[in-house]
Order: sequence, then C-alpha cells, then structure tokens
Amino acid sequence: MPRKICVVVASRANYARIKSVLAAVQAHPELELQIVAGASLVLERFGNAVDVMTRDGFAPDATIRFIIEGETPATMAKSTGLALLELPTVFELLQPDLVVTVADRFETIATAIAAAYMNIPVAHTQGGEVSGSIDESVRHAVTKLAHLHFPATELSARRVVGMGEDPATVFNVGCPSIDLLASAELSLGEDTFAHFGGTGATIDPERPFVLMMQHPVTTEYGHGLEQINATIRAVTRTGLQALVFWPNVDAGSEQVAKGLRLFRETGESGGCHFFRNLPPEVFVNLMAHCACMVGNSSAAIREGAFLGTPAVTVGTRQRNRERARNVLEASHDAGAIEAAIRRQIEHGRYERSTLFGDGRAGEQIAEILAAERPAIQKKLHPGSLLPELEPA
Amino acid sequence: MPRKICVVVASRANYARIKSVLAAVQAHPELELQIVAGASLVLERFGNAVDVMTRDGFAPDATIRFIIEGETPATMAKSTGLALLELPTVFELLQPDLVVTVADRFETIATAIAAAYMNIPVAHTQGGEVSGSIDESVRHAVTKLAHLHFPATELSARRVVGMGEDPATVFNVGCPSIDLLASAELSLGEDTFAHFGGTGATIDPERPFVLMMQHPVTTEYGHGLEQINATIRAVTRTGLQALVFWPNVDAGSEQVAKGLRLFRETGESGGCHFFRNLPPEVFVNLMAHCACMVGNSSAAIREGAFLGTPAVTVGTRQRNRERARNVLEASHDAGAIEAAIRRQIEHGRYERSTLFGDGRAGEQIAEILAAERPAIQKKLHPGSLLPELEPA
Amino acid sequence: MPRKICVVVASRANYARIKSVLAAVQAHPELELQIVAGASLVLERFGNAVDVMTRDGFAPDATIRFIIEGETPATMAKSTGLALLELPTVFELLQPDLVVTVADRFETIATAIAAAYMNIPVAHTQGGEVSGSIDESVRHAVTKLAHLHFPATELSARRVVGMGEDPATVFNVGCPSIDLLASAELSLGEDTFAHFGGTGATIDPERPFVLMMQHPVTTEYGHGLEQINATIRAVTRTGLQALVFWPNVDAGSEQVAKGLRLFRETGESGGCHFFRNLPPEVFVNLMAHCACMVGNSSAAIREGAFLGTPAVTVGTRQRNRERARNVLEASHDAGAIEAAIRRQIEHGRYERSTLFGDGRAGEQIAEILAAERPAIQKKLHPGSLLPELEPA
Amino acid sequence: MPRKICVVVASRANYARIKSVLAAVQAHPELELQIVAGASLVLERFGNAVDVMTRDGFAPDATIRFIIEGETPATMAKSTGLALLELPTVFELLQPDLVVTVADRFETIATAIAAAYMNIPVAHTQGGEVSGSIDESVRHAVTKLAHLHFPATELSARRVVGMGEDPATVFNVGCPSIDLLASAELSLGEDTFAHFGGTGATIDPERPFVLMMQHPVTTEYGHGLEQINATIRAVTRTGLQALVFWPNVDAGSEQVAKGLRLFRETGESGGCHFFRNLPPEVFVNLMAHCACMVGNSSAAIREGAFLGTPAVTVGTRQRNRERARNVLEASHDAGAIEAAIRRQIEHGRYERSTLFGDGRAGEQIAEILAAERPAIQKKLHPGSLLPELEPA
Repeated sequence: MPRKICVVVASRANYARIKSVLAAVQAHPELELQIVAGASLVLERFGNAVDVMTRDGFAPDATIRFIIEGETPATMAKSTGLALLELPTVFELLQPDLVVTVADRFETIATAIAAAYMNIPVAHTQGGEVSGSIDESVRHAVTKLAHLHFPATELSARRVVGMGEDPATVFNVGCPSIDLLASAELSLGEDTFAHFGGTGATIDPERPFVLMMQHPVTTEYGHGLEQINATIRAVTRTGLQALVFWPNVDAGSEQVAKGLRLFRETGESGGCHFFRNLPPEVFVNLMAHCACMVGNSSAAIREGAFLGTPAVTVGTRQRNRERARNVLEASHDAGAIEAAIRRQIEHGRYERSTLFGDGRAGEQIAEILAAERPAIQKKLHPGSLLPELEPA
Repeated sequence: MPRKICVVVASRANYARIKSVLAAVQAHPELELQIVAGASLVLERFGNAVDVMTRDGFAPDATIRFIIEGETPATMAKSTGLALLELPTVFELLQPDLVVTVADRFETIATAIAAAYMNIPVAHTQGGEVSGSIDESVRHAVTKLAHLHFPATELSARRVVGMGEDPATVFNVGCPSIDLLASAELSLGEDTFAHFGGTGATIDPERPFVLMMQHPVTTEYGHGLEQINATIRAVTRTGLQALVFWPNVDAGSEQVAKGLRLFRETGESGGCHFFRNLPPEVFVNLMAHCACMVGNSSAAIREGAFLGTPAVTVGTRQRNRERARNVLEASHDAGAIEAAIRRQIEHGRYERSTLFGDGRAGEQIAEILAAERPAIQKKLHPGSLLPELEPA
Repeated sequence: MPRKICVVVASRANYARIKSVLAAVQAHPELELQIVAGASLVLERFGNAVDVMTRDGFAPDATIRFIIEGETPATMAKSTGLALLELPTVFELLQPDLVVTVADRFETIATAIAAAYMNIPVAHTQGGEVSGSIDESVRHAVTKLAHLHFPATELSARRVVGMGEDPATVFNVGCPSIDLLASAELSLGEDTFAHFGGTGATIDPERPFVLMMQHPVTTEYGHGLEQINATIRAVTRTGLQALVFWPNVDAGSEQVAKGLRLFRETGESGGCHFFRNLPPEVFVNLMAHCACMVGNSSAAIREGAFLGTPAVTVGTRQRNRERARNVLEASHDAGAIEAAIRRQIEHGRYERSTLFGDGRAGEQIAEILAAERPAIQKKLHPGSLLPELEPA
Repeated sequence: MPRKICVVVASRANYARIKSVLAAVQAHPELELQIVAGASLVLERFGNAVDVMTRDGFAPDATIRFIIEGETPATMAKSTGLALLELPTVFELLQPDLVVTVADRFETIATAIAAAYMNIPVAHTQGGEVSGSIDESVRHAVTKLAHLHFPATELSARRVVGMGEDPATVFNVGCPSIDLLASAELSLGEDTFAHFGGTGATIDPERPFVLMMQHPVTTEYGHGLEQINATIRAVTRTGLQALVFWPNVDAGSEQVAKGLRLFRETGESGGCHFFRNLPPEVFVNLMAHCACMVGNSSAAIREGAFLGTPAVTVGTRQRNRERARNVLEASHDAGAIEAAIRRQIEHGRYERSTLFGDGRAGEQIAEILAAERPAIQKKLHPGSLLPELEPA
C-alpha cells in the first residue's frame, strides 16, 4: 500500500515552493499524494491560487478556510487557532502517513502541531534559515516539532542539526522552488500581461520594469503604511514601469494594502499594473526579465539567486537571510531605496547562483519520503554538535 | 508604571511549579501580577485547583475554558486551537508587558504562540529539559518562540543556548517548584487525609504508603489502559496502602482513568484512596512521607530529588530526563515495577539533591523580569555554541 | 440515486428518540442513511453511547467532539459555537440532501443553523412542545430554521403551525421513541444489572426500585446542587432501592454531578446503583418495571405515558409539557417529592396512553423524507392560523 | 446602579438602524451603554465603519473579529460559530443586564444564543418582518430566543405575537433608522463626494444619479455573479451616473464583488463611483437626493419609505417585505430592471410614509429597557392569538 503523503499548501508562495515536490510525490510508485489547500491559497481576494494549482493537476483533497478577517496580530494568532481546529478533522479523514509543511508562514505551525500531536510524522522544508518577522520564530519552532527536515542550503542544514535535530533526519536537497526555475521556459511571451488580469497600466515588456512585492513585518506591526509608502515613493521617482503585488495575509497586511490602494486612487500610479496572483511559472518569468525586484519578498533572495535578478531588499524582513550577490539592502527610506534600485539597474542581471539548489529537490524529497521512517517520539540529539553540553 | 507580568497557569502541576514566582512577582514593587487560569486548573473534574490558588491569594484575572472533551490526539490539538482563540482576547484585555508560560504541557504552546504573534515577549520556565511524550517537542518549540528562558538546571540552560538562543536571555535560576519545598512545613498532620476528600480507603499515615500517579504518554496513544493496569497490578501485589491520583488531561487520559475506574469498581482496590487534586503543599508533604512514588510524573524526579523520595519511573514518559539518585526506571511490566518498588522500599529515603535548585528561583525570576527588556524580534544566535556553523 | 438523509445524534436520549427513524431510513430503498455522532454520545464520561449505537448497526459516518469542559452557561454557548465550526466541515464532506435534528438540546441549534445556512433542508423532531430550561427557546428557534416538522402530538403540531410554519410541512407522526417501546421485549431479565456495569449496590429486581434522573435547569443555573440534594433526600427517606443516572452535559451538570458524587461518597447511598449509560431498550425496560421514576427527565412524560410509569416530575424543567395521567409534579422540596413518590408507589402503574404516538413514527418519517421536497427559502406562513394578522 | 445595556453592532447597516438607540441609552440616567463592535463593522475591507461610530461618540467597549474569509455558505455558518466562541467571553467581561441584537443578519443569531444561554435577557429589533434570503429564518429564530421585541411596524408586531411571544414583551415603536432621517440635515453639500473617498468617476450632484446596492441572496448561492451583472447592465443602459456600493459580507458576496470588480476593470464603468462605506447620515442624504435606488437593500424599503426614494427592488431578497408605495419590483432581468428604473425616474420622488415609524423609536426603546424586567425563562404564549391551539 502506498505511503500517504499529505502536503498542506497555504499560499501562492507556498505553492511555488512545493510544486515540484507535489509532482514528484504524485509520480512516485510507492507514494500517494494528498493535498490540503488553505489560508490565502483559497481566497478570491488573493487571486484564488488554488485554481491555478488545480489546473496544474494538483486538485486539493480538502479545502479549509481559517483566515479570520482583520489582519491584526490577534487575528493572526486566532487564525492559527482556527487552523488547529480544522486540520485534525482533515487528518482524521485523510489518515496520512506523513504530513509536509512548507517554510515559515504563521499558519504552518498549526500544521506541525496538529500532525505532531496526532502522532503523524511531520516533514518540514526550508528549516534552518534566518530572517526577520515572526517567521523567524515560527520556522525554528516548526523544526522542533518536525521529524524530517529538508533545509534548502548547506548552512541551513547545519543550523537545523545545531538546534539539536538528529543529523539522520536532516537532508539538504536544495529548495524545490529552484526546480521550477530549472525547468521553466523563461521567455516573456507577448500575452503574459494580457492573460493574467490585474488592474492599471499596460506594461510594455520591451522597456525595463520593476517588480514590487512588499509584505508587512509582523514584529513591526503598526509601521506597514509608512514602510510601503517609502517604497512607493522610491519606485515612482525612478520613473520606471512597475508590476505591483498585493501583500500576504499577515498581521499588518491591511496597512500595506491601504498604502497601495491610496496610491492607486491618487492617480500617481500611472505606470503601475497591480496583480493579485500569478501562476508560479509566470511569476518567475517576470523575475527573470524584470530590471529590478524591490520589496521584502524572500523570492528576491531565493529564486533571485538562481535567476540572477537584481534585487533591493527593504527593511528587516529578510535581514540575516543567507543570500547570493544579487541582493542589495536598504532601510525604509525612499532615498536609500531609490539609490539602491538605480545601482541595480545600472548593474544589470547577475550570474546564476546555485546556493539554494540546482533543481533536483522535488525528486530527492520524494525518494526520502518513500524511504525514511522517523520515530514518532522525538529526542533532542546530543550527538554531533552539542557534545560539550552533555554531562561526562 | 509597574511592568505587567501575565502568568498563564493551566493545571495543578503548573501551579506548583510557578507558585513562588507568582508570590515574588506580586511582592515586587516594579511588577504587577496578572494571572490567567485555564485548562484542567479550572475544571471540577480535575479538582478545580483554581480554588486552591485563589485561596492562596492568587485570584485569576481571567479564566478560560478550552479543553474539548474526548482526550484523543485530535482533541488535544483542537483544545490547543481553542486556547489560541481565547488567549489573544485575554491578552488584548490585560495588555501585559510580558507573558510567562510554564514548562511543556500541550497547551503551553498556545500561550507562547499567542503572545509571540502579538509581539508580547514570552518567558518560559523549565526549557532545555528532555523527556518522552509530546511534551518533548512542545518544550523545545516553546523555547524557539520565547524571549526569556528560565531553565531549571545548568545542563538545561546549556541546551537552551545550544539550540541557538542568545545566552544573554538564558537564566539558570533553578526550578520554582523547589522553592515550595524549601519553605514548606513537611510534617504529615493527622488530618491531611480527612481534609482533602477523595474516595476509597482511609490511609494510615503511620504505615508505609505508595503514591501512584501515572499519566498517558501521548506518543504511545492507545496503550494507556494496559500501561496503567501493569502499574496497578504491581502496586496491588506489594500489598501496601496507596494514594492514587487521576491522570492529567492529555490524549489517552480517558484510558488511564478507565483503568483506575475499573480497578476501583472491582473491589480489589481495598487499600487505595483516590484523589483528584490536592494543594501543592499537601502533595509535596505526601511525597516527603511516602514509602515510594510510582508512575511517570516528573514530580518524582524534580521535587523527588530535593525531598529524597524513593521513586519508580515507569515507561518512556520521563526517559532521558536529568535526575538525581532517587529514581529507578521500570518498563510497563508488572513484575519489573513491583521489583523496583520493593528495592526502593528497602532502600528508604535518599539524601537531598539540589540538582533542580535550592529554593530561590521565584525571587530571582521576579528580579530578572523587572530588569530585562528582550528584543521582540528574535534572532538565531550564532555566537557561543554554534560558531562552526556560520560561514567564514 | 437515493436521497441522503443525515441524522445528527448527540446524546443517549437523542439516540433513543431517533433510533426507529435510523432503522426506517436505513431500510428505505430511496433513502441513504448518514449518521453524525457528537456531544455526549461520543464521550466516555457519558458512557460512550456511540458504541451501543454502533453495535445496533448504526455506525456513525462522522464523529465530532465539541463539548468544551466546564458546563457553565458560557461553555454551553461556546460548545454550540464549536459545533458550528465542525458541522459545516462534515456536511461539506457528506453532502446530505437533508439533515435531521432531534428535539431541543442546546447543541441541536448548531445543526439547524449549519444546515440552513448551507442551503440544506432541515427536518426537526419534537417541535411544538413546551417545557422549561433553555430547551424551550432552543426548540422553537429550531422550528423557525427547519423546513420539515415532525412534532410528536396533535397539539404540538398545531403549535408549530401556529408559529407560522406552512401546514404542508408539518406532520404529526408521533414520537419515534414510542416505536421502541411498542416493539421492545419488556421483561426484566436476571442479568440486566450484571450486564451494564455502573457502580454501587446490586439492585434486586424483585423488590420495588426507584429510577432517578435529574438534569440541571440551565435557566436556574447555580441552584443545581440544592435541587439534586432535595431529590436525593426524598429518595433516601423512602428507603427504596434506587437506580441513579448521571446528568446530561448542560450548564450546571457539574453541580448535579457533584451532589451525586458527594452522596455516593458519604455512604448513605447504600441502596443505590449509579449508571452512566444504558442501551435505550434496557432503559425503557427499567422504566417499564420501576416502582416510580423521579427527577426531571422528559422520558418520564414521553415514554412514561406509553409505559404507564408512575412518575414524579420535580421543578420547572418539564413545566407546561403536555402529559398523560402518569405524572405528578413536585417543587424542589424533599418533603413534597417524598410525598409524591409515596402517592405514586401506592397508585402503582398507569394505563397506557398513546398521547405521544402509537409506535409507527419511524416508518412514517422515512416515507415523508422520501416524498417531500421543501423549498429552501422559508416563508412565514400567513395562511391558516394567522389570517387576521395580514393586511386587508 | 444603572442597568447595563449591551448593544452588539455588526455592520454599517446595523449601525444606522440602532444609532438612535445608542444615543438614547447613553443619555438615559438609569441606563449604562455598552457597545460590542464586530463582523464587517470592524473590517477595513468594508470601510471600517467602527471609526465613524467612534467619532460619533460611540466607542466600542469590546471589538470582536469573527468573519472567516471565503464567504461561502460554510464560512457563514462557521463565522457564526466563531462569534459564539467570542461573545460569551465578552459578556462575561461586561456583565450586561440585557443584550440588544439588531435585525436579521446571519451573525445576529450568535448574539441571541450567547446571551440567552447565559441567562441574559435579549432584546431584538425589527422582528416580525418577512423577506427572502437566510435572513428570513434568522429573524424569526432570534424572535424565539429573545425576551423583549421591538418590531418596526404594527403588522410586524402582530406577527411576533402570532408566533407565540407574550404581547406584554412586544413593543411597536417604529424603526430606529427612521429617527436618523427625522433629525438629519438632508441637503447634499458640495463636498459630500470629496469627503468620503471611494474610487471611480466624480459624481455631479446636480445631475440625476442612481444609487446601486445589491447583496447576495444566500438561499440562491451560486447565482450572485449573474444577478449583479443583470443590474449592472440595466444601470449602464440608462446612461445615468451611479454610486455603487460593495456588498455585505454574506455567503456569495465574493461573487457580487467579482462582478463589480470586473465591471470596474472593463472600463465601461465610466459614470460610476464605488464606495465601501459612508456614515449613516451621508448615506441617507444620498438616498434623499438620488433619482432612483436599485438593488436589493432593505434601506430602499425602510428608509426609502420615509424619504420617498423611488426604488427598484431586484429579485427575492426583499420579496414579501411590507412596504410603502415607493418601491417597484423587478426580476433579475436587465430589461425588466432598466424599465423599472425608467418608470421611477419618470415618477420622481414619493410622498413620505411613516410605515416604519415617525422618528421616536430610540427614546421609546430606552424607556422600555429601563422599565421592563422580562423573565429569563421564556414560555410559548398561549393567550391572545393561539387560544384555539390549547386543550380545553
């Protein structure tokens, strides 16, 4: 009987970072794929990315809706609570042999808790990275709840082990998001913009354009409006065309969205096109052709490394994250952001870096999921990296 | 304005392990104590320990009820979810400057998540210990969400730092539960048993008696009935009087309780007295005078070390936990348990060990809470213990 | 394709009152039975009546756990809320064509709301009756949410229509609980008591015994302990053997249970046997043979009418409920209750009344469920009974 | 000690319909006002109407967020469930003597259940009306849970009594929404449009404009997009300027919103201005000056009667609702809607009707709340209107 692997996919970004795993698990003779779709992935307001996923051949086995409107720190906690009420029902129904949770968004901890409490082994991707926002704490807490680890870089793998995980459960296979890039047809067709809706100006792909994607920093809640405004001002001053994305559903999103809405309504947004959602392949295609990416999305660092996308990372959200040479940092200051964008435009595209993998993560993960049987009772591993901690 | 310290107390055991902190915070001129009572602490079925706490001068500022009946792995996860729906409401109301979460029961992670997501610093006691059951994962995940750490032993403190926490946030002050012992009047009055209800035989304190307390092991869900039966058989065969406690509210409690109920109903429980709850001081008094403690409560290891209580720890729940010399291990085998009890009876009481502290934890914690201002944005600490992990 | 009829069963009493419907739906060629088990039906503490139901051939298609421990008015509301979070998931999964909700317990309104909001027609049994406790409001509110009505008496049917329901949707078929009685083998086997566990004295079926079942009155929350104590005193004074049942899970149950627990522990309960749960057939058998039933269960009135069971109904919980001649009322006064019991003992059994039906309700309900297609959009019916209300 | 009256306000429309009650309770010497703000009232996406309310002097004592994103029938039920988890916490905190719930939106039943289950008397406004959508069932179910009734018309009052409510608890005082109209300054200042944001065309108040507000019909879920499109087409064909409002948060809103969004993006919406929210006074001012109101808002019928606003009511949502002469009905057919709009434009404004009250509802309600002490135990009232139902 095939081993049932249940992957919880909770956002557009999640999907891009796990798609090649879905494909590899689906194709593996000893594995049976189960998909749970939730959070912003299933919301019209966020472009209903679940439809894209379904068209790609990954129809969800269960759909759960647990985002409580409001996007305050309290609703972020409560939405996680609601996810914890929903997920056990789904797991009881689907009876998975193992659950996969992706990366570090706030709701991923609900997946890890639900499965771990129910004695279902948990596999976690992208552990061991460092960043700002609450994601930093979520990511490491999920590591402590997980039974198998698929960090995306060598350093991340060493950090996961360093936190006391058994090295036998840690596999550095690179990031599945890179698989997508390695196999993608990276040419910007004429109709890229026509196909995918959105509002605002028509973008001329022949002329340079900026890709702007800025999320709230939950640990700096209350500053989202001024933070997005600085970035908007910087982009506006460069005079470049811009593709603007709406933010994630995180505490503070509403403030970022408000900034974008006000910007759109003022009429100074003449050169901008606003997108809610794009299929992962289209998004990376835009990353492969934009003049510069600006904001605080981890895509600039992760996919950007492989694509050589010039990027300006604003504020603390990606602070300390391991990166290739394609990224410049800027504080939330319009002048600093503008200067960094201009430097990147001048520099042009960077060379490919395989820091986050070489495009074979999905297959490798599927193989490991088929082979490994981690113990359900976790133990802090005293062996390799913390020997001096144990009593003589 | 005093700094508002909000302590979430969720069970009889929680209360015993944080009581001296409540007293010290309450007494501190720069701190204001807030108490949230929840989980089994506020349930009649578990002896309504909140009444004891209130009579001790620690009336809760808020009471939350979030235990979903059923005690399956799924309800354990869902109860945590419900706690995550309740706690943000309480925190929005009380506006604490810092939240304290105690030890490692399943619901403590809800406290840590709610506070951390709401940008309220979290202090955690008893981090860095190792054990079996889901507690092991919960404890370390809470460490990764917490901003201040109060581990109870030197080794635990080193483990917390080893997991990447900033050493400047880690304070080995001993376990507050030891404070209680250090100050308690440890003599067994005539009326100890008369005062505190319960059902079954009258215990003669002049003759040796066993103290039996066995909780389910969530990671071995489904085996609770056979596990308690082995212990019951062992205790019955020794022919000793026994004080028997009902189990915690964990996945599998119902099975353990069923074992006790069937035992009580069969009539072979002639020498046993059943308790739902006792004030912490009375409980440690019983520990100080019993001939042997048997089961899998961490009290046997923690308070037992200081009191020198001969103890038999059954199964995996306390596996790997740091301990003094007073503890023998036994598997879930009636013969093995019986033999170990007999060995302990023969040995008699042990010498005091201060492994878990010397009785000044509460005061020290209050001082540190008054003095420290941890950053809300956590960072994996690359410094002291993981230097080799970072890139050159 | 058969029409999917989903019945939500939430307690031992619910089951007794819908069992013949389950059987008739299961047997009907045009219907497919779906069962959702929830609330106290699935709790060990309440005797896990779901096991009885399953052994009877009615295994649940879904099991939901939504009772939040505490049994306060607030948890009664919150448990209903939790049921409203669980039921839509179940209904999305089972895709029923119609949902049946039974009687008037607090959680039944969650079933009615969930189904009605999801545009699934709702059928309701036992509408139009009157009583005390919150059940009174729940019952009529459910009527206003339901699309098909199966009241148990002619008067109840007229009341449902009188509240503005379309007479074409109201069917007086009698109460399914009577079906059970009509077909039951009503003889008290020797082993009735041996088979079904419980604790306390052995009952001698040859000598007269009292059947005591008293639930909290939610609208008189806080008086449960004194109310049960009055009944306990009355029963004790009669000197009769007694079968005592634990109360329902309602706000205040804990107080009633506490009264019973204290009673059991004092040792004055020498002639009493305590039951958590019995199969419906056994329970009615006891009703058919007891000397008197005392408390405030509606069974005394409903099944009691058909069985001719002498009954003393205490307090307001059954106030105003339509009844046969077998019931005497008493206030919460030990003397009054004792006197009423003695009068009933003296009187002995009553003649059968078919006020609540003649034993064919189940079949009739199944036929109607197969035939009727109520409109999902309800309309206050201005026709038959409220003509004078409408404008000329 | 003043009697604490807690009003739960859950949407922009709710606020308009209870504002005069808030003012009258606040001003009454024997009453103390408590306000709970929830649902769409506190959501940025719906214009954060709570800010308007706060500026008006009605700052909420508690804010609850319970809308689960998705706007499917299942999330409508689940959001109600979440409200039922939140409201008891709030009521335990505020300890109201009476709770007021407004009208018939899906979440109002949570207020009624929470309060009734907690033995807090419930007062209900706008009972006894009839309409389409799930509101019809919600309204009457709330009546059966409520202890005091404030229907808005004589006929509604008679219906409430006809459903079995005690006439002594039913007070026809008119609708508080009319109070607002009676006292409002109904002149359209130059800056009405400038002040209140929104997007799209600038409206010239000197030229005729249409006011379009269409909500989903939950009982016709799945048809929202085609329904809004018919109305859009009709309005577009008239060539008039239009003020367009986003729909309520109900099952199906997303489909209506999608229709509006697509319309806005196509560029055919040249003459339209889109609003998320307006203060009640501004909204009624627009109603007082528009050439025609179109859609299915009850405001067209209620406030429209008093203001004499020519209105076209589309579809079944207001079907059967009592009305004055200002309303024409149309099916979801663009031609029919267009024709009706043209007829109304031709007719011009209607004479004032006081069908829904004369402007003194708020004061009267406050007086009654101060004077009445309804019994917490409800009883189906057999007296006035259902005499023939009771047994001889």
